[in-house]
Parts: sequence; structure tokens; C-alpha cells
Amino acid sequence: MQNVLFYQDAVTSYLEGFTKEREPVSLYNPINYILQLGGKRLRPVLTLMTAEAFNVDYKKALDAALSIEVFHNFSLVHDDIMDDAPLRRGQETVHEKWDVNTGILSGDAMLIMAYQLFENYEPTVFQALAKLFSKTALEVCEGQQYDVDFEIRDDVTIPEYLKMIEYKTAVLVGAAMQMGAIVAKASEEDQKGIYEFGRNLGIAFQLQDDYLDAFGDPKTFGKQVGGDIIENKKTYLYIKAVEFASKENKLELQHLFSLSPSDPSDKIETAKNIFLSSGAAEATRAEIENYTNKAFEVLETLNISEKNKDILKAFGSSLMNRNV
Amino acid sequence: MQNVLFYQDAVTSYLEGFTKEREPVSLYNPINYILQLGGKRLRPVLTLMTAEAFNVDYKKALDAALSIEVFHNFSLVHDDIMDDAPLRRGQETVHEKWDVNTGILSGDAMLIMAYQLFENYEPTVFQALAKLFSKTALEVCEGQQYDVDFEIRDDVTIPEYLKMIEYKTAVLVGAAMQMGAIVAKASEEDQKGIYEFGRNLGIAFQLQDDYLDAFGDPKTFGKQVGGDIIENKKTYLYIKAVEFASKENKLELQHLFSLSPSDPSDKIETAKNIFLSSGAAEATRAEIENYTNKAFEVLETLNISEKNKDILKAFGSSLMNRNV
Repeated sequence: MQNVLFYQDAVTSYLEGFTKEREPVSLYNPINYILQLGGKRLRPVLTLMTAEAFNVDYKKALDAALSIEVFHNFSLVHDDIMDDAPLRRGQETVHEKWDVNTGILSGDAMLIMAYQLFENYEPTVFQALAKLFSKTALEVCEGQQYDVDFEIRDDVTIPEYLKMIEYKTAVLVGAAMQMGAIVAKASEEDQKGIYEFGRNLGIAFQLQDDYLDAFGDPKTFGKQVGGDIIENKKTYLYIKAVEFASKENKLELQHLFSLSPSDPSDKIETAKNIFLSSGAAEATRAEIENYTNKAFEVLETLNISEKNKDILKAFGSSLMNRNV
Repeated sequence: MQNVLFYQDAVTSYLEGFTKEREPVSLYNPINYILQLGGKRLRPVLTLMTAEAFNVDYKKALDAALSIEVFHNFSLVHDDIMDDAPLRRGQETVHEKWDVNTGILSGDAMLIMAYQLFENYEPTVFQALAKLFSKTALEVCEGQQYDVDFEIRDDVTIPEYLKMIEYKTAVLVGAAMQMGAIVAKASEEDQKGIYEFGRNLGIAFQLQDDYLDAFGDPKTFGKQVGGDIIENKKTYLYIKAVEFASKENKLELQHLFSLSPSDPSDKIETAKNIFLSSGAAEATRAEIENYTNKAFEVLETLNISEKNKDILKAFGSSLMNRNV
């Protein structure tokens, strides 16, 4: 196995060959645009790393890896329309640069192109990849729908929230890794195991995102600290705080999350204090550790070399330390 | 082979088993709604008929047939958003009954579910179906994009227009039939042949739609006669009339197609007269016959019984006479 930068470069080069000029340009230019906006390519990198962890040349997994990346970008294009987001990675979103109809149709084409990327694999591998892809893609849609549904609900429970982030984010990480294992013809058990590694790590990562949004270092956290609080997003921290806080603090928090003050600094400060005093911050950290440990435990059971386990574990740890 | 009504019933019953209540309901209810709005189910019927023409029980083709119908309805949901259409089959469109975001996300889920319907087939059949499906689905997106692009162009040629209707409509008819042949394990040659039969019939059908829009009998034509003229749609009739008409008539037609009068009856009358006097109406009828004949010619070359050829030919003829 190589280092992460090596696999990122491999994904980037392969992507360049994929994003060729194609007719009608009004359909394909937006696709090439979003695919070339960059990003860390973490999901396809995980596909390639997993293939090599199971002793198969990463090149064999490039099509599957690219499929995951194309799907991920499809979901960004459609989600950005639904969220009316003007920017993605500091650049205009597709529906802003073109229009909503272009965003819908180019997104649709990307979903289809993601399936096409499996076509060079032999029939049994093709079917295994496409089945896992469909199951995962549908879960991602369901996760997005739960996220939308939860916005207008006040009674979302912790298990419901965990299912939402699992579907919306974590299953794609698991699937990205299982695809590497499928291409490498790993056993069913190893496939399930590496999927669980990715899924648990994905949940931990998303919970950490919730945590860092409130308590992250503004210098290293990529987004605006307090952004979820400003937007009244009911994250893990919020749901736990409502569960744990004194009646007084609970009511104050719920009231705060119905306001949108022009200067949010007091609101952020108060919310963070309640997150801390209620024990919600600590409970969130404990849950992150819990899911990270689950991921590392299942890693131990896999039939891969100790060296490769260490590399995957180091990559997982670096993700959780946000150094990647 | 049975009659068309039999296969329509088979599709309807199979669809009922497919549209079960499922969580999250906000994602799946709109899907069940659009799938149960009705329609003639022509595409899935063609899949079943083709399977039986190649001597395989239609039941084996039900999943492939349903996939085609689910995909077709996916494209209706997204197209209706793009066209801002309030009604579909006399009922509210999905984005009207719910909202645009629901239409986008439920449509995405349908596209994925269409692929899942292939999963019960063995790997080689699965791969053949999914490959044909992806190629066709991407062409449908391209056709839709060409249609959008052509709206703001004045110089669309006949070959460009034919390619647009081929992609937007006809390839799915061809694919529906080829899927029946794939399930029946027909030879590559027969698969290609039945695809060509469907594709040519699909183009003829779409051209006839253009023709009937102007010259159809208001009693039997399902839509408002003159609708394309009212909407300034540059159909085959229009492009041919601009090509064939005298300079004076050409300018008048182009002028008419820049107006949207509140009472369109004069506009419709004048446009129809120019379609007739220029020879565009006759040329359109000739092209319809040309594509219908091409379809029937390729049918003759297939390795299916004469009786089955007659049934498919009769179904094709009834489609062109709009008795189905």
C-alpha cells in the first residue's frame, strides 16, 4: 500500500481522462465542472486503499472508485438545489452557474454514469458492485429525506438522528470500502467487515463534524464555527442537550433555536455553554469514541496483513484528527 | 402470445405488489402516487410481448418491464419540474402536489429502483439489462437536453430534430423490446433487430404525434389540437414548412411562431394552411410511413414465428392508428 497522496493523485488523473468534452455540452459541461471542483476525494481513495489492503492492484479498482466519486458529486448537485446553496467548495454551485433545470438533468446523467463505470467488470463483480451501489444510493436518498423531514420536527430522537447520518453519509463510506473488497474478490465476511469499518468510521466522522461545528478550532475547522447553531440545526449535540439539560436550560436552548439574530455571537456562546454544562458535549465525544472503537475492533477481525491494518487504522485516526 | 389487454393487466397487477408503503413515506408516497396514476403501460407491455415472441413466459420479463415503467415515470417527474407542468394524466404533478425538492429526490430514488429491478436476474442477464438501461437512460437525458437547447435556437435542422426525438422517446421503446429479448436469451442479432423495430416505430409514433397535433381529430387525439402551434414548438412540421415554404410564407410562419395571441384560432388556421401548402404536411406523412416501413422490414428478418410477427405488426399498426 502507498500513502494517501498517491491514491489522491491516482483518482485525480483518472478523473481527468473521464471528464472529456462531450455532446450536448449543455448537459456534460456542468458535470465536468462539478467533478473538477476538487475536494479531498476521500471516498474513492478508500476504495483504492481497500483493494490494495486485500492485495489487488489499485488500478483494478479505479472504475469503482470513480463511480463512488461521481455518485457523491451527483448527490451534491441535487442537494445544493434542495438547500438553495450558492457555493460549493468556494465556487458557484451548478444550479447557480447554470440553472435549476440543468442541475436536475446533469445530476440525473451523473447517477447513470456512475452505474456505467461498473461495466468493465466481469458479470458477477458487476452485479455485486451495482447491487451494493443501488442499496447504498437509495439509503443516501432516504437519509436526505429524513434530514428534510427532521427540519420541521421537534421530537427527533437520538436513534433517529443516528440513522439519518448513517444513511446520509456513513453508508457511502462503507460502500466505497466494500467495493474495493469486491473488486479484490475478498470473502463475504471480509466484505461485510470492511463495510462495517467504513460505516462506523463514517458515523464517528459525522458526529465529530457536529462537535467541531461548536467546539472546533476556527483555524483548522473548514467551516464557520457555530454554523449549525446559527442555522438552528438539531445536531447530536442539540438533541442530547435537550435530553440532559435542566428544565430551565432546555427551554432556553429551544427558545434560542427558534431565533435568527443578526449578531449570533451571544446565541452561540449560550448554546455552547448549555452543550457543555448539560453533559451533551461529553456525551458526543463519548459517542465519537464509541463508533471509532467499533470501527477499529472490526478491523482486527479482517483477513488482511497487520501492516495494512495499521495503515487503515492510521488513515482512520488521521480522518478523526482532521489532518487529511 | 396473448392480447395487449392481458399484458396491460399483468403489468398493473405486478405494479400493485411493487408500490407498498415504505419509510420514509415522504420519499416513497410520491413514487407510489405517480406509478399509480395510470397510463397505457405501452413500454412494459412491449417488453412482455417481446419475451413471449421469443418463446419465453412473460412472467420472467416482469421485473425488466417494471424497470422500464419506473424509469419512464422517473423521467416524467423530473421533466414535469423542468417544464413547470401542473398536470400529468389529468392529476396534479408530483412537484405540485408536494414540492420541487420532493420531486427531485423521489425521482432520484425511482431511477435507482429501476436498476434494482434487474437484481433477480442471473449475472450475465443482469449486466446485459443494466448496460442497455444505462445507455438508453443517458440518451433520454441527452434528448431532453437537446429539446431544451432547441427551444432557443432558430436553426434546428431535420437531422438534429430526428436525433432529439429518437433519444428523447424512441430509444426507450427499442430498449423495452430488447430487454424482453435479453430475458428470452435471443441471439445478439435478434436483440439488435427487435431494438431497431422499436426504435423506428418510436420515431414514427413521435412524428405522428407532431402531425396529429395539427391535423388530428379533436375527438380521438388525446391532447388539445394545435397545442404545439400555440406553444410555438418547432416540430417536424414546422421545420419542414420553413424549409419548403415560399419566402413570404416562411417569414409569416416565423413571425406567427414569435407570437402568443390570447385567441390562437387564427394563428392555428394560418399555420396549418402553410403546413399544407408548403408540402410539409405531406413530407411528414411520408416520413412517418418511411419509419413505419423500416420497422416492419426489420421485423421480417427476426427469428420468430410468422404468427408472432403478425401480432407485433398488428400492435405496431394499432399504435400508429392510435387505437391502443
